[in-house]
Amino acid sequence: MNRNIETFLGCDNEYEESKIVIFGAPFDSTTSFRPGTRFASKTMRGDSFGVETYSPYQDRDLEDYFIFDGGDLEIPFGNTERALGQIEEMTAEILEDGKIPGMIGGEHLVTLGAVRAAVSKYPDLHIIHFDAHSDLRDDYLGEKLSHATVMHRCHDLVGDGKIFQFGIRSGDRSEFVWGKEHVTTQKFNFAGLEQVVESLKGKPVYFTIDLDVLDPSVFPGTGTPEAGGVTFMELLGAILKVSRLNIVGFDVNELSPVYDASGASTAVACKVLRELILAISK
Amino acid sequence: MNRNIETFLGCDNEYEESKIVIFGAPFDSTTSFRPGTRFASKTMRGDSFGVETYSPYQDRDLEDYFIFDGGDLEIPFGNTERALGQIEEMTAEILEDGKIPGMIGGEHLVTLGAVRAAVSKYPDLHIIHFDAHSDLRDDYLGEKLSHATVMHRCHDLVGDGKIFQFGIRSGDRSEFVWGKEHVTTQKFNFAGLEQVVESLKGKPVYFTIDLDVLDPSVFPGTGTPEAGGVTFMELLGAILKVSRLNIVGFDVNELSPVYDASGASTAVACKVLRELILAISK
Amino acid sequence: MNRNIETFLGCDNEYEESKIVIFGAPFDSTTSFRPGTRFASKTMRGDSFGVETYSPYQDRDLEDYFIFDGGDLEIPFGNTERALGQIEEMTAEILEDGKIPGMIGGEHLVTLGAVRAAVSKYPDLHIIHFDAHSDLRDDYLGEKLSHATVMHRCHDLVGDGKIFQFGIRSGDRSEFVWGKEHVTTQKFNFAGLEQVVESLKGKPVYFTIDLDVLDPSVFPGTGTPEAGGVTFMELLGAILKVSRLNIVGFDVNELSPVYDASGASTAVACKVLRELILAISK
Amino acid sequence: MNRNIETFLGCDNEYEESKIVIFGAPFDSTTSFRPGTRFASKTMRGDSFGVETYSPYQDRDLEDYFIFDGGDLEIPFGNTERALGQIEEMTAEILEDGKIPGMIGGEHLVTLGAVRAAVSKYPDLHIIHFDAHSDLRDDYLGEKLSHATVMHRCHDLVGDGKIFQFGIRSGDRSEFVWGKEHVTTQKFNFAGLEQVVESLKGKPVYFTIDLDVLDPSVFPGTGTPEAGGVTFMELLGAILKVSRLNIVGFDVNELSPVYDASGASTAVACKVLRELILAISK
Amino acid sequence: MNRNIETFLGCDNEYEESKIVIFGAPFDSTTSFRPGTRFASKTMRGDSFGVETYSPYQDRDLEDYFIFDGGDLEIPFGNTERALGQIEEMTAEILEDGKIPGMIGGEHLVTLGAVRAAVSKYPDLHIIHFDAHSDLRDDYLGEKLSHATVMHRCHDLVGDGKIFQFGIRSGDRSEFVWGKEHVTTQKFNFAGLEQVVESLKGKPVYFTIDLDVLDPSVFPGTGTPEAGGVTFMELLGAILKVSRLNIVGFDVNELSPVYDASGASTAVACKVLRELILAISK
Amino acid sequence: MNRNIETFLGCDNEYEESKIVIFGAPFDSTTSFRPGTRFASKTMRGDSFGVETYSPYQDRDLEDYFIFDGGDLEIPFGNTERALGQIEEMTAEILEDGKIPGMIGGEHLVTLGAVRAAVSKYPDLHIIHFDAHSDLRDDYLGEKLSHATVMHRCHDLVGDGKIFQFGIRSGDRSEFVWGKEHVTTQKFNFAGLEQVVESLKGKPVYFTIDLDVLDPSVFPGTGTPEAGGVTFMELLGAILKVSRLNIVGFDVNELSPVYDASGASTAVACKVLRELILAISK
Repeated sequence: MNRNIETFLGCDNEYEESKIVIFGAPFDSTTSFRPGTRFASKTMRGDSFGVETYSPYQDRDLEDYFIFDGGDLEIPFGNTERALGQIEEMTAEILEDGKIPGMIGGEHLVTLGAVRAAVSKYPDLHIIHFDAHSDLRDDYLGEKLSHATVMHRCHDLVGDGKIFQFGIRSGDRSEFVWGKEHVTTQKFNFAGLEQVVESLKGKPVYFTIDLDVLDPSVFPGTGTPEAGGVTFMELLGAILKVSRLNIVGFDVNELSPVYDASGASTAVACKVLRELILAISK
Repeated sequence: MNRNIETFLGCDNEYEESKIVIFGAPFDSTTSFRPGTRFASKTMRGDSFGVETYSPYQDRDLEDYFIFDGGDLEIPFGNTERALGQIEEMTAEILEDGKIPGMIGGEHLVTLGAVRAAVSKYPDLHIIHFDAHSDLRDDYLGEKLSHATVMHRCHDLVGDGKIFQFGIRSGDRSEFVWGKEHVTTQKFNFAGLEQVVESLKGKPVYFTIDLDVLDPSVFPGTGTPEAGGVTFMELLGAILKVSRLNIVGFDVNELSPVYDASGASTAVACKVLRELILAISK
Repeated sequence: MNRNIETFLGCDNEYEESKIVIFGAPFDSTTSFRPGTRFASKTMRGDSFGVETYSPYQDRDLEDYFIFDGGDLEIPFGNTERALGQIEEMTAEILEDGKIPGMIGGEHLVTLGAVRAAVSKYPDLHIIHFDAHSDLRDDYLGEKLSHATVMHRCHDLVGDGKIFQFGIRSGDRSEFVWGKEHVTTQKFNFAGLEQVVESLKGKPVYFTIDLDVLDPSVFPGTGTPEAGGVTFMELLGAILKVSRLNIVGFDVNELSPVYDASGASTAVACKVLRELILAISK
Repeated sequence: MNRNIETFLGCDNEYEESKIVIFGAPFDSTTSFRPGTRFASKTMRGDSFGVETYSPYQDRDLEDYFIFDGGDLEIPFGNTERALGQIEEMTAEILEDGKIPGMIGGEHLVTLGAVRAAVSKYPDLHIIHFDAHSDLRDDYLGEKLSHATVMHRCHDLVGDGKIFQFGIRSGDRSEFVWGKEHVTTQKFNFAGLEQVVESLKGKPVYFTIDLDVLDPSVFPGTGTPEAGGVTFMELLGAILKVSRLNIVGFDVNELSPVYDASGASTAVACKVLRELILAISK
Repeated sequence: MNRNIETFLGCDNEYEESKIVIFGAPFDSTTSFRPGTRFASKTMRGDSFGVETYSPYQDRDLEDYFIFDGGDLEIPFGNTERALGQIEEMTAEILEDGKIPGMIGGEHLVTLGAVRAAVSKYPDLHIIHFDAHSDLRDDYLGEKLSHATVMHRCHDLVGDGKIFQFGIRSGDRSEFVWGKEHVTTQKFNFAGLEQVVESLKGKPVYFTIDLDVLDPSVFPGTGTPEAGGVTFMELLGAILKVSRLNIVGFDVNELSPVYDASGASTAVACKVLRELILAISK
Repeated sequence: MNRNIETFLGCDNEYEESKIVIFGAPFDSTTSFRPGTRFASKTMRGDSFGVETYSPYQDRDLEDYFIFDGGDLEIPFGNTERALGQIEEMTAEILEDGKIPGMIGGEHLVTLGAVRAAVSKYPDLHIIHFDAHSDLRDDYLGEKLSHATVMHRCHDLVGDGKIFQFGIRSGDRSEFVWGKEHVTTQKFNFAGLEQVVESLKGKPVYFTIDLDVLDPSVFPGTGTPEAGGVTFMELLGAILKVSRLNIVGFDVNELSPVYDASGASTAVACKVLRELILAISK
């Protein structure tokens, strides 16, 4: 008899044979409104039982690919820098082994840890960023490390013209003003994504999806629901486009299961991750 | 003084005078993920208090038609075959009396009981099936009778070319492969429904609506929410089309009220049933 | 040190300097199905912490305008006429001071109190009414004052041809019949709004938004969810149109926070109010 | 086939043959904090499916007694006096027919309607009152008719020395001061109940149980939970004592199902009502 | 890197070295009222993260003992006999290996599968049964296999005088009547447990705890909450007494996490299991 | 008209005239299991509307005392040391002005900030600590500042023999071992409190109540519910004893409203704070 193994939907291969490596980063210490994203990865593993491994959208099946789920990092709460260090270390190890890291947040700040590792291996790293919020503040109540500053911190690492945001519909005015000079922002939807994808052909790309880019009707289980988001089918279409690029790492984040007792938010998060893995696996 | 009578919205006529007969089949014993559909019919009766009898979509009123609500079958839990027997018997009796049975599930397997009765009276029975899931497995963990196999079991009864599925967006790959040979499946939406309706003119049709064909944003109160579904207006349009056919029986199923504390899922289920009854009554 | 002041998002100016005055009318005594709208204004103030003051839709910021939030009226429950009197008095005072009253309901009957005050100052008052329900009954179970009769009561004050309804998708047949003679009703959506706005240029307009005009997927937190509603973006577009008129008073109503534990309904209510205030402030 | 009859647990006899008559008074318009008790009677009928008819405490079975459930009064919301009139009329009719009325509230004010009818038939009426709140205010925000004034209003009808309160642990100081002169109040528990019962032998007694006399751990599903209440076993013991008296009418009130999603509050309310009916039936 | 292992609190030893073997039986197909116990074992594993391995009650620590958690059986829903077969087989294998099986239900019928295996190895098996419900029906709506008949079925295997029930406070009258002849029933509490334990010294004992023996205030997360139960401290005291016996197998069952969103029911279930394991391990 | 002021129940005096100063510390960044205590103070202010100012236990009324509520600190999330600095500063200012600070947490670590200020003014500070958890770890996953280490950190400041814990029923074994040498711990209940109070007469005492000392049946709305706690009446009795001492500061913490949708946890927290303020005010 074997001990009980719990992995995300069909991601039950061995590390060595896998091309994509999933892990959870259950961190939400800088969340400014409603915390709870630390439970996203565990809940997605559990509820993925109700999701099929086969995608009728892509006619592909997770069971045909080699994917490893390494479980969750054991992150101490209340020490932001140390949490980012753990994420960076894990991501670096996966990259070093020639695999693609796929992180399940946690709040959006976890992306910074992964991007630190990715930019270290790929100095020309570009970032495609789907989100409701621009996350471009330079600080939040004086803190440089925050889910509200994460893209500004990523910009510190990759520089001007490397970050492409889509679906943005919330932020401080100053974020939009600063953003105009330093990043490419498409408000509300995915218009222009095709061209961005064309222009990034061959470049190393980190792909971060804050699931609150989805409309709160589809995805209420998040800390800061923002009306006016995209549908699942729009997000799926955009993911399929981005996946044509050289994705060197990715994450999905900001699911906070406790705020959606129906489980529909967790289910759509699972389905987004399934489609993302399948699209990247081809 | 009279004892307390509770019927679905406006369905308070006597059996003899009614053309449509509603009843509940509170069965969910084969549900593989989250059970709870057994409470659908009771909750719909209670919450239909908040729904109008008049439809501004069809400019018709339930109060102008004769509909009977016979309450719920008393189904023993844990004995699938016996439950199906009760449903078959009830449906057969209604059909025998020249009325149209309209069942409120329960999980989707309840449809099998009703189809058994319907095919016995109408050997040329056709089935129109709205659903997120194809339900075409031959068995589920070895069980032939399951909410995941119900359409395969119906196919055992009606044969090739008689089942028309719409809105399907989830299943095992093998279901889609098998389906191609034996049933007509429209993935994701209602494209082609008009032609199917044309081709079925005059035939006896059983109409089964798994309410999870609706997007989980509209209908989160179900066992297995599947992102990417249809809107209420799309479903309504499709119902109006199908109702031009010779509907000999119908059901709505898979509402699981406990998973939607807002009551919106129950409310939309009530409205779907109201529109369906009105459309068929004309 | 100062006592704790809680206002709706950025509405923290002094009364004297403000052009728009927000207040809550926590009344829901005539609600026929599920009560709870009395908690809307308090919950919106609390949760507006998670909403930005800046609108990327209008490129305007609440911090650039002078708006006062006077808190909630202290309404006794169970005495409808007295509650309406308090609302009328508050509205009249604000109007007298040359400011625009913006009320947060409460159930929809609160609108009657405000309209009484508004029509007294502006005898030629017109009303633009967004809602799922026509609210045109003459009485409800014998009661003349009810959330289901509020537009009929407003009609008593303003007369024929002054009320313009949009998004209506529920009601008694008699309401629609009566409505045809006395008010202008656009069912289901905002078609024709542009022309109505054109025709009302220069007239004093009271603008009442029953938030259940939104689809329940977007706004499940309400007493009587009605499938088939508008999206947030459609509502926003319609608000921007209406705001070109001479709005002399407005309200948003029928948020019932307890029915949406995800907080998404409260969040969208906050965003609707933010956009409405910004649009009117220009 | 018969239309669907829904009664409280085993209370499915005909009116004529019954000694006890149950009915619901779904009224909560004067509730000052959290409304929702209007759904108590419907929810208790539905969930009584999960409760046995047999009491191992009393070794009696509801099936051995004749009890009728007349369903709910159709009460218009927002008109307190009219609602009380309906309750009084119903109660009077039952009393006139020589039966014992057993009302399911609703908020506590419903008791006033029943007491009006009871005192009219029994001028020497005494009242035993279990509650967390003294309900002795003379008015609440200027209103004479309120759930917070109901026992003061009952005192208007029965006079000094006729009301006996137990379990009281919340109120305005003035209520306790006034109470000392006019009613008998046992704070926190049932101490002294035995003597009160002795002293009331042979008198006509109306018995009203505000279920929030129970500790909120046992009964969280109520508008205003007050820590420090009694256990179910303490309440049961007290009910058995009171039932030795000449109970001419009774009610249980203040269950608000929406505030307890676990259903435990509804279940204990059902069990209290079962024990109360059985105790009185002997 | 290793795949993600999830075990109940501290039960992460290898099978071979372990004395106690935990496994989940996620079956609830015969539940007559509210299903959902199938999620108990998964939820307990996840939430045991918030529970300490050390017991200050017993001054013992799970980390000092060898316990294995084998995960959940993969049970097909809707086939009761087959589910029982899987449970029996698993239990038999553990018993054969000289270990103590500790099952997490599921509904109470799962006990029958385990008792079948236990009685086969220990023909003189006695059963100690803590529960709110007597579970002594001979059939439920015609079904012999049901959570309401499980102790009658166990009696079929062990015979008269071998079953000792405590805490029973709900059942059909006939169950109590039948029980008097065949089993020992202590209603409401644990009175007499000391003597029973004395009398069973040296005998093989199967110990089944239906967690609804706890008061619903402590444990609302169950299908059929029954007011009037025991406290956690009373249950703990009783467990410590029973654990002095020769326990050859045990189970805890009837946690239904979805009915207690606070998580307190799951937490107390974890703590009961921790104390039970520690008490048996000594 | 005045801007909307929201204070805790009756605490609406001016700062200068007040003897007790309430403020909120909405910090929960080091919570290891379920976060959410940051919303405690806001929710308590809002829900205190449903609580009376008068205590029938003490026959005192909050309206007779001068208490100021300064609202919440604006704490940045993710920077533990800075958060503690803000709390310390606020507490120091209140102490300097000769008033008693009464903090509403937040997680338990907030106590450290207040104790830093208190020990600075009162070097002989003693601490009375009610809690389910001993909070005596030296570090948690390497972090010195954590809700699980707060009492160890307080011990760093006050030294051996100054901390008196009651109600403790959870912790790591090493915490209990360490505790024996350095603090006084009463497990499970308040035994010995009378003597401790006697021995501390005249000393400056900081009083910290982790509300999870209450049984989860009474107080499920907390991050880590621990079965086996005290009742409200036991806690009230203990508070009345402690309040005979020279309390120089106090806090109540660990209410996490989102985990108790019934509101009963918030209500009992309000009542505990009311009784505590009244007891200290005498």
